Amino acid sequence: MQGEIQPILWESGRLSLLDQTRLPREEVVVESSDYREVIASIQEMRVRGAPAIGVTGAYAMVLAAREVAEGGDGGFLSRLREAAEEIKAARPTAINLAWAVERLLGVAEGESEPSMACETLLEEAKKIQRRDVEANRQIGRHGASLLRGRQGVLTHCNTGALATAGYGTALGVIRAAWEQGERFDVFHTETRPFLQGARLTAWELVKLGIPATMVVDSAAGLILRQGAVGCVVVGADRIAANGDTANKIGTYGLAVLARENGAPFYVAAPTSTVDLGVASGDEIPIEERDAAEVSELGGVRTAAEGIGIRNPAFDVTPNEYVDAIITEVGVIRPPYVENLRAAVTRGQGEG
Amino acid sequence: MQGEIQPILWESGRLSLLDQTRLPREEVVVESSDYREVIASIQEMRVRGAPAIGVTGAYAMVLAAREVAEGGDGGFLSRLREAAEEIKAARPTAINLAWAVERLLGVAEGESEPSMACETLLEEAKKIQRRDVEANRQIGRHGASLLRGRQGVLTHCNTGALATAGYGTALGVIRAAWEQGERFDVFHTETRPFLQGARLTAWELVKLGIPATMVVDSAAGLILRQGAVGCVVVGADRIAANGDTANKIGTYGLAVLARENGAPFYVAAPTSTVDLGVASGDEIPIEERDAAEVSELGGVRTAAEGIGIRNPAFDVTPNEYVDAIITEVGVIRPPYVENLRAAVTRGQGEG
Repeated sequence: MQGEIQPILWESGRLSLLDQTRLPREEVVVESSDYREVIASIQEMRVRGAPAIGVTGAYAMVLAAREVAEGGDGGFLSRLREAAEEIKAARPTAINLAWAVERLLGVAEGESEPSMACETLLEEAKKIQRRDVEANRQIGRHGASLLRGRQGVLTHCNTGALATAGYGTALGVIRAAWEQGERFDVFHTETRPFLQGARLTAWELVKLGIPATMVVDSAAGLILRQGAVGCVVVGADRIAANGDTANKIGTYGLAVLARENGAPFYVAAPTSTVDLGVASGDEIPIEERDAAEVSELGGVRTAAEGIGIRNPAFDVTPNEYVDAIITEVGVIRPPYVENLRAAVTRGQGEG
Repeated sequence: MQGEIQPILWESGRLSLLDQTRLPREEVVVESSDYREVIASIQEMRVRGAPAIGVTGAYAMVLAAREVAEGGDGGFLSRLREAAEEIKAARPTAINLAWAVERLLGVAEGESEPSMACETLLEEAKKIQRRDVEANRQIGRHGASLLRGRQGVLTHCNTGALATAGYGTALGVIRAAWEQGERFDVFHTETRPFLQGARLTAWELVKLGIPATMVVDSAAGLILRQGAVGCVVVGADRIAANGDTANKIGTYGLAVLARENGAPFYVAAPTSTVDLGVASGDEIPIEERDAAEVSELGGVRTAAEGIGIRNPAFDVTPNEYVDAIITEVGVIRPPYVENLRAAVTRGQGEG
């Protein structure tokens, strides 16, 4: 793969996804023309990252619409709505998936002809994909100013090109600051259990030529306390109206440790990640994934047999730990209830 | 293995160690009659846990003394001192290793005949081993009262029979409370990178018949915030005179998250883990281990090639986060400078 990483590609009526479960060992592309295969790719995390699964969900809607339209036996919209429910249910926490699917459903509802709907849906999916990259570059520009003069920055999970339509959110902020000539120490976690940090963020940073140091998740406290990290920047899977932020498991702990050590804690996400429909983080559903992600590695059991396991994929960071939310329309500060609502309105205007 | 787990066994002039790198898949015993092999076992973590490497170091001194005495070419004590330095250098953070080796060296210095020294050294090593089990049972009794009425308890790494001469420290507290009929939810971390939680603590808890739930290290914040955990109890590799505690990487983060969520944070360790020679945690050397522990699993590389890695094996929890230190002579509360000194004096009196 040369130049920019393109995790999601639409070509000749098929959706190509760079299989993120195979990275960094192999760069394998999975092609799908059936929306059910795309749902499976989202569930099995061949594609992951809130903005990326939003874009992927949009293309899944295009594939579903084509299938329903080809069937030609009427009930186009009602059958598309059924497919939309299936796609939205693929993963529950990230709002971008539901956001994109709902958006495409709205577009379909505005068309009277299935064949015409299929065309406008494809245009809309492409637009969401294009706008996501644009939004990320804007997030990068806005966020870079917050990294100026920092000795170090710590990030968690993968929020780079792979997690989005391209460029990245939190990793995009790091990249943008680096491209502006800022120099600072980059730290990232390995991010158990799925190792998005070790496998994906490390891979992206090496490709970008940005020197970085990885630690196990539990070492974040030590490097924050040693003063090596000037700030923490992470992505988001869903931001409630009050700024409470659902993100990869461990984010809450990083936020508390950042606060304890005087390091600002920033969330970087497009306004499409803000869900004004949930008042606080308490209302955000937290996905529990298969215990085998924790008890096995590479198919080999590492944990002792017989032990119970919980595998929550996300946690919620209360808004009081979030110093700022970096969006494509600017850096949002508290009070979040007012300022996020205004940002979402502006973001929708631009979108 | 039936009944009590015996990680360290002296028999017929040989030291048998249950190879903890092979657990939980295989129960393999490694026998050594050369102290250099024992040093390798400590370094490669076939035996680990501060009290366990203390006991192991004592037997390594016995093997070294026998070798030097058999050589018979004089300079017994000076050559034993050289071996003592080698043994102490095997791992730097846990004080128990240096403590036990120095103790045996002192015993050897009190003997005029090498052959007699060898006998008294063996008696002393056996005494350290026996006393460690006794101390752990006392720690369990003292600590169990702190768990009374708790809904849940969280522990980190492995501090059970495997980490000690038997019974365990923090895990011994959980076990003692359970044996007294207390019932509470037990949570433990998997403990990256070496997976002492997933491989060893899970194995011990299953053997003990205590139901428990494991989470990835970074999920501790979520379960603390959800109120599932009433308190946190961990072991220690070295406790400074002021109560600052070096322990497995991630302990500091757990302490901060416990405090943030109103859960008491307890350290369980014998007084031999207290190092009155270091005034604060800043003076405790933190071992950095091989990057491969983080970048590989089971010999298979998981991290992207080219990424930098730091692998600090321990961190220091400042005394202000430690609600109590559970020792064999009782539960020590702040002010630690005075109260730890008194506890160590009492502990030595009993030892």
